Amino acid sequence: MSILSQNSEDDKEPVVPKAVISRLSLYLRELQHLIRDDQQTISSSKLGRVLGFTAAQVRKDFAYFGQFGYPGIGYRCEELIGQIKKILGTDRIWPVVLVGCGNMGQALLGYRGFEKQGFHVVAAVDVDPKVIGKQFHGLTVAHIDTLSTIVIQQNVSVAILAVPAKAAHEAAELIVKSGINGILNFAPATLNVPKTVSTVEVDLAMELEQLAFSVYQNQDDSN
Amino acid sequence: MSILSQNSEDDKEPVVPKAVISRLSLYLRELQHLIRDDQQTISSSKLGRVLGFTAAQVRKDFAYFGQFGYPGIGYRCEELIGQIKKILGTDRIWPVVLVGCGNMGQALLGYRGFEKQGFHVVAAVDVDPKVIGKQFHGLTVAHIDTLSTIVIQQNVSVAILAVPAKAAHEAAELIVKSGINGILNFAPATLNVPKTVSTVEVDLAMELEQLAFSVYQNQDDSN
Repeated sequence: MSILSQNSEDDKEPVVPKAVISRLSLYLRELQHLIRDDQQTISSSKLGRVLGFTAAQVRKDFAYFGQFGYPGIGYRCEELIGQIKKILGTDRIWPVVLVGCGNMGQALLGYRGFEKQGFHVVAAVDVDPKVIGKQFHGLTVAHIDTLSTIVIQQNVSVAILAVPAKAAHEAAELIVKSGINGILNFAPATLNVPKTVSTVEVDLAMELEQLAFSVYQNQDDSN
Repeated sequence: MSILSQNSEDDKEPVVPKAVISRLSLYLRELQHLIRDDQQTISSSKLGRVLGFTAAQVRKDFAYFGQFGYPGIGYRCEELIGQIKKILGTDRIWPVVLVGCGNMGQALLGYRGFEKQGFHVVAAVDVDPKVIGKQFHGLTVAHIDTLSTIVIQQNVSVAILAVPAKAAHEAAELIVKSGINGILNFAPATLNVPKTVSTVEVDLAMELEQLAFSVYQNQDDSN
């Protein structure tokens, strides 16, 4: 769950609410599933139903960016995938650097989902001599001192931060100094970075809390 | 990012919108940070500001559950933490079982954030003879065939699913059969489970997409 996905209904400031952007990811993933199942078109009501939104919501979300549906046909899946990727900026490959190669970092290196959505982990760095020089999923871990060089050479603008909480601030400073503009933060610490650097905090316990609430409600209902 | 955190503004059906529940997790985490920093009280406007919500939004969110603020004081952090945990159902320990002990599973076993929020991973299971019997972070991996016994003996109602996509459906079936009511799904596959079983899908690439959008917008603005 990301801060970005939290949208205040009272907050009229941003032109496109962050909740809409976060729903674009959901639509994109569903459309990708449809294409895999050989379905070429889908109506707004069907697309909404499978995700738990109304047809009106789906149409309203896309209306921020243009007119993508066809009368009597609905959305053409392949075309809409292209449009959403263009909006999100993921219609190109994003080179990503992983900072921190402990358990979590190594798991993330093996996570296929990033590559599939256009994120290419081009380098992995750490400070620990025990992992520097080791190879995980085809990448050799480099020293964090080489970060700036990696960023320039590989044109990296996004980092995944997967270090322990106590190392998070120092690592974030090095990331910012290297010229990176976005941090996906798996470290259990709130980062203090300049406004020009975007951050998304990943707090896996929040997901579990949401699940717990749902299980708890169901248990209540069945009593 | 979870399906649960996506709330349709048009969808008036649920009494408490799912987005509110997902914001409760954010409030909770911020209040826990405040307590750690020895701050005993906070106003709705300050609590909102740090998370990017208006004071009205904060008050409206809590109003679903009762009156928690004090005139002239604001919220008492410790007390509000207790209230939120009670609402979420995390005012007690949740025994959790991990299904799948590959890279991701092992990383999750090492993830301190779960324990801190009241989720206690009591067992880990797999089908792979290469990991069964091995110990990670103090837990010995058991065969998935023992899942039902574990669930009964340890009173488990929530599972974390961290298997490869191709194993997800079979594993989910076994989880459901064992009597578990909630699945936190890290497998890159949509699960087909009975309605009585809650699922939260964790798609880490979605977080990266949201970050990419934000970086992309900032780059646009600076051009």
